[in-house]
Amino acid sequence: VSSEEPAIPDATEHTVGALTVTAPLTAAPTDAVHAVIDAVRSASQGRLVTYVYVVEDRRLVGVVTMRDLLLADASAALTAIMLPDPFFLTPETTVEDAMRAMVHRHYPVYPVCDAAGCLLGVVPGHALFEEHAYELSAQPGRMVGVDEDEQVSTPWPQSLKLRHPWLQVNLVTAFAAAAVVGLFEGTLERIVILAAFLPVLAGQAGNTGCQAMVVTLRGLALDELPRSAVARVLRKEATLGLFNGLLTGLSAAAGMWIYATVTGTPGAAMLAAVVVLAMVGSCLLSGVVGVAVPLVLKRLGADPATASSIFLTTATDVVSLGLFLGLAALLVA
Amino acid sequence: VSSEEPAIPDATEHTVGALTVTAPLTAAPTDAVHAVIDAVRSASQGRLVTYVYVVEDRRLVGVVTMRDLLLADASAALTAIMLPDPFFLTPETTVEDAMRAMVHRHYPVYPVCDAAGCLLGVVPGHALFEEHAYELSAQPGRMVGVDEDEQVSTPWPQSLKLRHPWLQVNLVTAFAAAAVVGLFEGTLERIVILAAFLPVLAGQAGNTGCQAMVVTLRGLALDELPRSAVARVLRKEATLGLFNGLLTGLSAAAGMWIYATVTGTPGAAMLAAVVVLAMVGSCLLSGVVGVAVPLVLKRLGADPATASSIFLTTATDVVSLGLFLGLAALLVA
Repeated sequence: VSSEEPAIPDATEHTVGALTVTAPLTAAPTDAVHAVIDAVRSASQGRLVTYVYVVEDRRLVGVVTMRDLLLADASAALTAIMLPDPFFLTPETTVEDAMRAMVHRHYPVYPVCDAAGCLLGVVPGHALFEEHAYELSAQPGRMVGVDEDEQVSTPWPQSLKLRHPWLQVNLVTAFAAAAVVGLFEGTLERIVILAAFLPVLAGQAGNTGCQAMVVTLRGLALDELPRSAVARVLRKEATLGLFNGLLTGLSAAAGMWIYATVTGTPGAAMLAAVVVLAMVGSCLLSGVVGVAVPLVLKRLGADPATASSIFLTTATDVVSLGLFLGLAALLVA
Repeated sequence: VSSEEPAIPDATEHTVGALTVTAPLTAAPTDAVHAVIDAVRSASQGRLVTYVYVVEDRRLVGVVTMRDLLLADASAALTAIMLPDPFFLTPETTVEDAMRAMVHRHYPVYPVCDAAGCLLGVVPGHALFEEHAYELSAQPGRMVGVDEDEQVSTPWPQSLKLRHPWLQVNLVTAFAAAAVVGLFEGTLERIVILAAFLPVLAGQAGNTGCQAMVVTLRGLALDELPRSAVARVLRKEATLGLFNGLLTGLSAAAGMWIYATVTGTPGAAMLAAVVVLAMVGSCLLSGVVGVAVPLVLKRLGADPATASSIFLTTATDVVSLGLFLGLAALLVA
């Protein structure tokens, strides 16, 4: 009987190895059922025995459940009742990959073996599920540069250190949007009313892109987005961007037309048309970028959610503001 | 032996009841161990038997594990070896609340009883964990108006129907920001350079608020934010907003000073000061609003994540743009 200590002390965080504990009970394939029942009896004093792992030359060759022992002939050998060549996890497997392997198994405990099949220990299924839930709950934070380990109870100086760098990165990217607006200073000087619609365009494009992005991120997290589906998802989000842009563009154009008419700005109809065109174009592109950002981050070996919101917003700001002011400069006299 | 059919067909979604199946095996407290072992043997043909539930007058009075049966005297009655008054879930319990009750238990299967303690069925622990993981993975989507049931494979017309309403709501709120900018048309006409900094201010305030909001939402999801901690968390995020606003404000002010100097706009130093002041004020308020939005939504009985991003952005846009243009109107001649 071993105590519930980490079996692999130096394992990498967020891997199966970090959650592996020593196995409470192992037996040899030739052991008789009655002898194993005695072993379960004494092992049960200290630990919860769920399975008996059958080991030969340190290699895991089978697994026996309490139900198997209960229903077996007392003099039989374990070889006769064990499930041979059982499923096992390796310590290097990430928790996310382990969850995929576990999805149709749901054992309370999984054996952990090295590449040669030697038993290293066991990992409780609930520990994997908890770690997975913890990682899933961190995803919205990772999108805006909040570290996975930050909690509501983290002291503010540490939170500042963890979060501030991404805000400075965000600032640099916001300057890109500012530079785009700066390019059209002349247009803005002539038609000041355009300034009021900058947050409307940027906000709508950002939100449309963010909707596409969270659906993509969730597809990746739940392993529902194979590479073969990428083209289809890109087409879907482009179509959605087109229709969402058209419908919200018409609403926003109505707002622009009323605003321009009330303030006596000339070219109200053309300004409304610019709003529709800019909204359609920028929402269509935002949908595509929303799918692309997590996929590109993943392809680069990064976490697909990390700072994804910052990259997305930069793209949607630059495109939506550039398109809106560019079209206004072209079309409104 | 019953088949693995839903035990409570009309149960509400996202509750324990919806995941409850019939119990594979029940026994009476007076049943002898050897008779129960025979019952396990035949029940095991059709279903996976993990526990024997001991029932008296339909009420759940005990639970017996396979290990208990294995180690017991064959002639003993179940009363002698059962765990009496076992923990059970009720069908009305939400999956989220069930997860809290389960956190230190981790049984493979939980009994489900009505308020009177009558056994209705069992719910596998993995089913609760999966449902919880599914709900957690939907949170970023809910923040921007994406329905929990939308997947990457959802056809686009259905996605349009699900997502579009929130985009129209977002548009209405974006008009609030536009109206604020519109109030300062005269100021913008005099100092066109301010228009370029609108997306910078709005973007920074939005991101600072979003960081505070995701940490708050995660605290709620993982049940780490008791009511007594709210005042402390508000102070923390206000402090963070202050320092993040000051530091990014100084960076942005440097950008403004350079831009104003290069373009020959008068009052470069005062414009830079306006940027710092507006950034500090709006980031501080954004931090507080980021904590408040999910807490208010929860208090109102809504899901704390639903459309939270839209409410947050409206507040941060109005505050940051109003403060920036208001200070500019006041301080820059």
